[in-house]
Amino acid sequence: MAADKAVRGRFFEDFRLGERIVHPTPRTVGEGEAALYLGLTGSRFPLASADTAARALGLARRPLDELLAFHVAFGKTVPDVSLNAVANLGYAEVRFLGPVWPGETLRAESEVIGLRPNRDGRAGIVWVRSRAFAQDGREVLAWVRWVMVRRRKPGGGGPEAVVPETADHVPPQALPVPEGLHGRGYDTALTGSPWLWEDYEPGERIVHPAGMTIDETDHTLATRLYQNNARVHFDAHAMASSRFGRRLVYGGHVISVCRALSFEGLANAVWIAAINGGTHANPVFAGDTLYCRSEVLARWALPGRDDLGALRVRTLGLKDCDPATVDEPRDGEGRYRPEVVLDLDYTVLMPRRR
Amino acid sequence: MAADKAVRGRFFEDFRLGERIVHPTPRTVGEGEAALYLGLTGSRFPLASADTAARALGLARRPLDELLAFHVAFGKTVPDVSLNAVANLGYAEVRFLGPVWPGETLRAESEVIGLRPNRDGRAGIVWVRSRAFAQDGREVLAWVRWVMVRRRKPGGGGPEAVVPETADHVPPQALPVPEGLHGRGYDTALTGSPWLWEDYEPGERIVHPAGMTIDETDHTLATRLYQNNARVHFDAHAMASSRFGRRLVYGGHVISVCRALSFEGLANAVWIAAINGGTHANPVFAGDTLYCRSEVLARWALPGRDDLGALRVRTLGLKDCDPATVDEPRDGEGRYRPEVVLDLDYTVLMPRRR
Amino acid sequence: MAADKAVRGRFFEDFRLGERIVHPTPRTVGEGEAALYLGLTGSRFPLASADTAARALGLARRPLDELLAFHVAFGKTVPDVSLNAVANLGYAEVRFLGPVWPGETLRAESEVIGLRPNRDGRAGIVWVRSRAFAQDGREVLAWVRWVMVRRRKPGGGGPEAVVPETADHVPPQALPVPEGLHGRGYDTALTGSPWLWEDYEPGERIVHPAGMTIDETDHTLATRLYQNNARVHFDAHAMASSRFGRRLVYGGHVISVCRALSFEGLANAVWIAAINGGTHANPVFAGDTLYCRSEVLARWALPGRDDLGALRVRTLGLKDCDPATVDEPRDGEGRYRPEVVLDLDYTVLMPRRR
Repeated sequence: MAADKAVRGRFFEDFRLGERIVHPTPRTVGEGEAALYLGLTGSRFPLASADTAARALGLARRPLDELLAFHVAFGKTVPDVSLNAVANLGYAEVRFLGPVWPGETLRAESEVIGLRPNRDGRAGIVWVRSRAFAQDGREVLAWVRWVMVRRRKPGGGGPEAVVPETADHVPPQALPVPEGLHGRGYDTALTGSPWLWEDYEPGERIVHPAGMTIDETDHTLATRLYQNNARVHFDAHAMASSRFGRRLVYGGHVISVCRALSFEGLANAVWIAAINGGTHANPVFAGDTLYCRSEVLARWALPGRDDLGALRVRTLGLKDCDPATVDEPRDGEGRYRPEVVLDLDYTVLMPRRR
Repeated sequence: MAADKAVRGRFFEDFRLGERIVHPTPRTVGEGEAALYLGLTGSRFPLASADTAARALGLARRPLDELLAFHVAFGKTVPDVSLNAVANLGYAEVRFLGPVWPGETLRAESEVIGLRPNRDGRAGIVWVRSRAFAQDGREVLAWVRWVMVRRRKPGGGGPEAVVPETADHVPPQALPVPEGLHGRGYDTALTGSPWLWEDYEPGERIVHPAGMTIDETDHTLATRLYQNNARVHFDAHAMASSRFGRRLVYGGHVISVCRALSFEGLANAVWIAAINGGTHANPVFAGDTLYCRSEVLARWALPGRDDLGALRVRTLGLKDCDPATVDEPRDGEGRYRPEVVLDLDYTVLMPRRR
Repeated sequence: MAADKAVRGRFFEDFRLGERIVHPTPRTVGEGEAALYLGLTGSRFPLASADTAARALGLARRPLDELLAFHVAFGKTVPDVSLNAVANLGYAEVRFLGPVWPGETLRAESEVIGLRPNRDGRAGIVWVRSRAFAQDGREVLAWVRWVMVRRRKPGGGGPEAVVPETADHVPPQALPVPEGLHGRGYDTALTGSPWLWEDYEPGERIVHPAGMTIDETDHTLATRLYQNNARVHFDAHAMASSRFGRRLVYGGHVISVCRALSFEGLANAVWIAAINGGTHANPVFAGDTLYCRSEVLARWALPGRDDLGALRVRTLGLKDCDPATVDEPRDGEGRYRPEVVLDLDYTVLMPRRR
């Protein structure tokens, strides 16, 4: 009799602390993927937009958008890590180690660094440290994430709880600066924004004025492009009987749209060096219009560099409201207000004024 | 006075037995088309997904997805063959003769191999054998299809009926194996599925668990990408007064989505060698969620090859239902059940266990 | 205190006659963009469709579709010129100076050539002459457009009115013919249409039979691809309280769809040399089905050329109606009928019969 071929993904019982998972389906990401990513986000950040801009900033040509590379690498981990996720709880220490060039092939692997069974015996939390590599073995991305994964069979027992420590943020001295990237002689005519690193003050708030409505094909096209097969994004028939009643927009698409919208106010944030943490505070559905607002959390010099500096930024993604009117993202009881969809803490590199 | 420029397509009276039709508008299909195809289907089959995977399987780089090449070539034939089709009745002997590489240019031609007037004098059936060639003259695809085409003027008469024989299936010894493709040293980590040719048994059924909802832009973007100009897919205003009331999803998109969904269960089916036949049992509309279920019809060794074998597979495309619950696709009177949208008989190549 | 980073765009008061504006965010436009453009429009015109077709017409390979290059270049001007536009009033003297090749980088600049304050003190009209350049400094596009732009502060005064003269049409002797493009030995099998330059008569009307319904992701994907950030196309939440009640389709997408539909009737119009003028007579919304109908305004020989001629064409874009039934686009009082969405006057190059 033939073996059962059903693909069910890993359940909580299937993870072992310290285990290394090599994720399948490597992916070549080329100029076609780059073009479609621009079409899906409308991003105007200079590095991924034009070869001439990339060369002015010290790179050989336009690299893939950092988030495109991330979403593809992340998508590789979904079949092994989160196909049976109840909730994607968080991520940390996301580091963009260097450019991925069009035509390069990404593969990913993960190490299980933490496990904690839920008390109710129905699920448990899995922490993984994931890394993505180009075809030449170069590590290009690294991150930690944790997800609550269903058990195959509800019940007690399971591994002793091991909860890893994750950094509150990637510190300035650990921020990766892509090889060759520099801010020497940077011409703000590239982006049309005169504001450079020195012009941003910790505590400053920036309202990004534009909004972007997400339609069904927008997010499903993006998520399929990343070969992310999480079913909640694609299957309206099954989701009709979920508590949401419909498909969920992939949180990564929300991040990408907010990043693109943040161009108006942070145009010279030429490179995302790290994501320190993020929460998808409320679901996004097709038909929602996204806006965002940022706050500068810190302004850091980079060791040995007078051409580029770092800004730690908190961007709130909001839906169907005026982003200038949202003061506090949480209500008096500490819960996110219903219009908040993303609370992202990340660090960008920006040319310094000379 | 200027000649009438209206483009009306061929009617039944316009076809002559033995006639060779050279289809217009050759098309270069590059990495951009390949990326968009992945975005439209989410396919994770290894050959078209990564250069590294293609090289591990003996090819120089990732070829175009077999179905992308087919849809483009098929689209070339639409203006001449089926613009006035009442129904696309079937196809057979579809052979994928070898990889099409990104950047190659496809053109197509057809020979009229059968004609049969309908008794009602309003239409007739046209059989064509079509072939697609790359810019260097290499034949890359061949197929037979038959369509019912309206007459320009209803009435009797017309050609004597000639109904060609088509093969029930492409036999194992006639299956094309792309030059260079091999399964030697195949590493199942490429796809994450441990199941190879030997693991599939004739009669075995495989439920592919994922579903994919089709939205309007999904299918129209795909169908425009293929330059397929059949009007039923694009013109909601005209279709509002048809018996369907709205646009129809191109059957080729349904095949592509089902192929992508079949990855979960048939992940190592690295190459479609042939389509033996197919029926679009019921129409698909935007908003429908597609699922599929497969049955292994035969397992064939390939002459002189111990690294690759062939599986003949029947995949049922279903909509808005649990694919595990559909037992028989036809009801007691032999009619397809309303949830069945595709009944596809095709042959894939899969690495053998060594 | 940090400087206010809000991006508000230019208001009428910010423009100075004779001023030169260098637009930010240059853009590399590659094969990925070209593929997506085909997917968005379904265009089958031969030059941008196939390398073999481009070579048969004298070019080295397939160039970008003329309109794709135009939309990207136009998009560059939006943040500086029309972010605060009340209305896009018109354009003229659009000249397609030569092919843009996949992989080239476009940048744009504009000169303010006219200004006229409105009497009501709330806005004024700005005329700009814009030009786009490839990375090697080659001028590839030039055009004039005029927009009504809001004042930052309503009030009288402002510059003396200077209204530039714009040409009624680009005259035949000023039509750019791309270097290398020729019609010698042109084979109509490329397009399947037998009609060449000599076959079109001034006054002749051509009904293009196909229709194309526009869905939300169609136009937003296109417009984001062009990095055009005009907010009316993207922000359903804000547009819900506008007089339209919903998002507007970018007029450039309407032009592109009409151009693609015009293939059936004008298939050998291999190159758009100029747009003489155009009016977006009524807005287009998602769900509308576009049709079009053309009239030949003039047939011009080109100086020194017996292989290519020019046709001046007026194409009416229509929505949700049979294009054969629209006789006059304006009603008795000179207003466009509600089904007319585009009135485009442009000039194409077509091979001559030898």
